[in-house]
Amino acid sequence: MRRAVTLAAHGLGATSPNPVVGCVILDASGEVVGEGWHQRAGGPHAEVNALRAAGDKARGGTALVTLEPCNHTGRTGPCAQALIDAGIARVVYAVGDPNPTATGGAQTLRTAGISVEAGLLEAEAAEGNAAWLTSVRLGRPHVTWKYAATLDGRIAAADGTSRWITSAESRADVHRLRAECDAVVVGSGTQRADDPHLAVRGIEGAVQPLRVVVDTDGTAVTPGARVLDDAAPTLIAVADDATPAYAVEQTVRLPRAERGLDIPALLEALHARGVRSVLLEGGPTLAGAFVAAGAVDRVIAYLAPVLLGAGPAALTGGGITTIAEALRLDVSETVRIGPDLRVTATLVAKEH
Amino acid sequence: MRRAVTLAAHGLGATSPNPVVGCVILDASGEVVGEGWHQRAGGPHAEVNALRAAGDKARGGTALVTLEPCNHTGRTGPCAQALIDAGIARVVYAVGDPNPTATGGAQTLRTAGISVEAGLLEAEAAEGNAAWLTSVRLGRPHVTWKYAATLDGRIAAADGTSRWITSAESRADVHRLRAECDAVVVGSGTQRADDPHLAVRGIEGAVQPLRVVVDTDGTAVTPGARVLDDAAPTLIAVADDATPAYAVEQTVRLPRAERGLDIPALLEALHARGVRSVLLEGGPTLAGAFVAAGAVDRVIAYLAPVLLGAGPAALTGGGITTIAEALRLDVSETVRIGPDLRVTATLVAKEH
Repeated sequence: MRRAVTLAAHGLGATSPNPVVGCVILDASGEVVGEGWHQRAGGPHAEVNALRAAGDKARGGTALVTLEPCNHTGRTGPCAQALIDAGIARVVYAVGDPNPTATGGAQTLRTAGISVEAGLLEAEAAEGNAAWLTSVRLGRPHVTWKYAATLDGRIAAADGTSRWITSAESRADVHRLRAECDAVVVGSGTQRADDPHLAVRGIEGAVQPLRVVVDTDGTAVTPGARVLDDAAPTLIAVADDATPAYAVEQTVRLPRAERGLDIPALLEALHARGVRSVLLEGGPTLAGAFVAAGAVDRVIAYLAPVLLGAGPAALTGGGITTIAEALRLDVSETVRIGPDLRVTATLVAKEH
Repeated sequence: MRRAVTLAAHGLGATSPNPVVGCVILDASGEVVGEGWHQRAGGPHAEVNALRAAGDKARGGTALVTLEPCNHTGRTGPCAQALIDAGIARVVYAVGDPNPTATGGAQTLRTAGISVEAGLLEAEAAEGNAAWLTSVRLGRPHVTWKYAATLDGRIAAADGTSRWITSAESRADVHRLRAECDAVVVGSGTQRADDPHLAVRGIEGAVQPLRVVVDTDGTAVTPGARVLDDAAPTLIAVADDATPAYAVEQTVRLPRAERGLDIPALLEALHARGVRSVLLEGGPTLAGAFVAAGAVDRVIAYLAPVLLGAGPAALTGGGITTIAEALRLDVSETVRIGPDLRVTATLVAKEH
């Protein structure tokens, strides 16, 4: 199953609105005879790919799958039926399918006389599918807020200079994050300060994410902005009453919040476009708006061993005024990236 | 030698103004026959303790020492002579003695016909003796700035509440840091806000550090303050022209800086009192003054996986205005302490 979880991760960033899924087929004697993963939405599911690789050797064998095999016919046929047809004797899956239209696969398999077990390496598999599981559960995309700061929490010096706080290795690592998600989101402050490109560079075969600029007043994105090139699709979110100076086909109009745009409405609009995972690369103000909206599921902090003692903080305006209201997370990983630290922290026991 | 470095560390916090030193004696066949470390200033040096443990088995053997054996007679006799008298055939040491009054041990040993090698595990041994080596090189104590903050660099919420950002495990770990240093320093802001005790609790046999309050105007420490109890010695640093409301024997008067006290003068006063290592537990203002004075050698950050988005930053007023002036360090260690991260970063290539 560990191998299946690894296989599943190959699909990150390319399968939305579907989950990532990995599958390993063992023959009747327990030898690995087929592997597969779900590579892209509309393409064959992991089980089908693995069964194809196994061929006749699957008969009487075991399928190890990271997610409960689906029971419905979408653009592809139901995997439960494919497993039955291939003569699989036993199915072990990690995570039950929470999707009401796809669930029931385990029951279908059992009815066909197949031995079914659930829950093997469930936590690891769920972690690998966090974005999709969150999106099913909450009806909005999973949000990872990524930021780069000094050890003392500054994202720039007092004079606004910030190139570079983190290392080239950390900046390259961000492209991997972008490739694994469906949309990259920045706000008007970052748009004005950095004119960012937001596309994935340096990762072969990467599916480009949707580039999203939250440009409430329609004034931050100007003609010639780098996000307007054709390296990746772009969506600009503006307020209902904004009169943007530019005209872009991919504009979405959303209601205003007390400050900026309404974040739940933004996430709903992205979800409707098939976005299941968002990498929030916005500055402190947009990040604060997401925190205030309860819409940060995971934080990835690139911390440079640097002290500034002055300059803007990584996060502002999240609406937290006292220690009891602090947003508490669990550190799920700490990795050295060149001279920096990458700290991944996840919101646990999420209320919904 | 790795064992000798470990032995040396047992002396941290108890040997000042001396270094920590560990020693392992091998007999002529290479078997370990004696171990020792320098336990406290005025007590026997590591070599003498190890030679005592080895007895006659030291004859013809090897001494592995973390620091070049001393050549001078202080409160104890020179270790070089002790090694010669014990019939040691070979001495391997990690770090040369930079202390002008103690150096020359290697030469004395060689003159006596003993084979001498230097530099084995030098970096590890130097790291273990960083405080003492810094104090010899710079003529001031080694300074570790310790702070506890959220992942976004806040030390309290917007309303000033901060209990607790970090976990009980992290707070217990700080007592170990205190036990390993000679003095613990806070400023008037921390004194007023927290009335801290600053003594070591929960570590058996710990030597209590000198508790130092930088109380420039002589108004922050008030009668009944917890640092005035007899759990540990206390020194209160006030300005030359201050008129403190209290009268404490252990007061030192120092010149004022543009803001607060003159930090180099404070460190000089501590050095004169035998302090070789300082744990700076001060708030953002005092930490900023130390940074501005170029007097932070190491940073230990306890980072809680918590976001606040508002509230005081860990460091202010370090005099850094642009990214090129940022204080850059090297991460030397990252450890999980309960739910928190402890990040240790060290100033490298220190100019002096």
